[in-house]
Amino acid sequence: MGFMTDFPSKVLQDAVEAIGSLPGVSSRTALRHALHLLRQPAENIHHFAESIDALADKVQYCSECNMISDGPRCGICDDKSRDHSIICVVESVRDVMSIEATGQYHGVYHVLGGIISPMDGIGPADIAVEPLVERLSRAEGPVEVILALSGDVEGETTAFYIYRKIAGLASKVSTPARGLGFGDDLEYADSLTLGRSIANRQEFRPE
Amino acid sequence: MGFMTDFPSKVLQDAVEAIGSLPGVSSRTALRHALHLLRQPAENIHHFAESIDALADKVQYCSECNMISDGPRCGICDDKSRDHSIICVVESVRDVMSIEATGQYHGVYHVLGGIISPMDGIGPADIAVEPLVERLSRAEGPVEVILALSGDVEGETTAFYIYRKIAGLASKVSTPARGLGFGDDLEYADSLTLGRSIANRQEFRPE
Repeated sequence: MGFMTDFPSKVLQDAVEAIGSLPGVSSRTALRHALHLLRQPAENIHHFAESIDALADKVQYCSECNMISDGPRCGICDDKSRDHSIICVVESVRDVMSIEATGQYHGVYHVLGGIISPMDGIGPADIAVEPLVERLSRAEGPVEVILALSGDVEGETTAFYIYRKIAGLASKVSTPARGLGFGDDLEYADSLTLGRSIANRQEFRPE
Repeated sequence: MGFMTDFPSKVLQDAVEAIGSLPGVSSRTALRHALHLLRQPAENIHHFAESIDALADKVQYCSECNMISDGPRCGICDDKSRDHSIICVVESVRDVMSIEATGQYHGVYHVLGGIISPMDGIGPADIAVEPLVERLSRAEGPVEVILALSGDVEGETTAFYIYRKIAGLASKVSTPARGLGFGDDLEYADSLTLGRSIANRQEFRPE
């Protein structure tokens, strides 16, 4: 990193270090970004900084589902046309956005804000499981819970932990189907997915 | 970009749009960066925003060479141990940092802040040529000017324009050597570089 040792300006160096703290951004790229910003009119730079500041000051979390929101409740929980008897439990805000983008799901969500990972020192108390338990306890009718967590050890550990916590509170607990992707070539599927998709084969129903 | 159409929060959307305005940052990457920031403590987010704001408020430009600086004169122009009789003319702050990182140059610089590019509407008046002319006019002894600009049409146009402007003011005008990179394989050199490096061959002097 000899390239970065001598900064002509502490101000530039601070900006490069801040931008370089973003995941996957090298110091070299951070410098390019900082110099790009430096060439913009001051008002653009201020607008950039303000929109970052707002992430700390203005974002709220939905009191119902823990999704980020501009108010005390999110637009999904406030939407009466959605099915509030199905709660899809996900790790992050991003997962909600991905599922929403499919246009295939019309229930509501519960954002854990993390996943149980003893390696990273994240235990059950660090993610929003208790609020889910309370939410289910308050529910007036039967509620299905979809555990839409990642397929790795952490995801499975978290799913199992939640499953035990909500047993008796949820009328049904499900998990998204796993198998070959639609349109996938067998040839390119990983062998775990291929093996399980054969074992969990479904009845063929031509339309 | 169906993925990005429904933001759960205007605040998040603004941050993603700001970050996505950086060169080469896709909306998807910008979202990842914004969500990463969102997970940081508020003080870290504020520090990030402040360091960007400082680019607009605190950066100064050296009155001598136009390099960015934290004061009215940069550290290089203020350094009496450097050779002030050689001025290396470059397009940008980044070029200065690259040359400084080589540790091979001990003269001073002149940062044009752009390059003549009629296609982009950038003419001679938009870059710092006049300040260079004034600087040379003020010089007390002979000054060598190194035109270290890019090898493309814009760089050559700019070099030629400056050359005519400073003729008679500079004691010598030079340009960095071009040829095969040190350690380059002939096989992988582009043919323009290879051809010119043969035409401009230098005497072989084994040590």
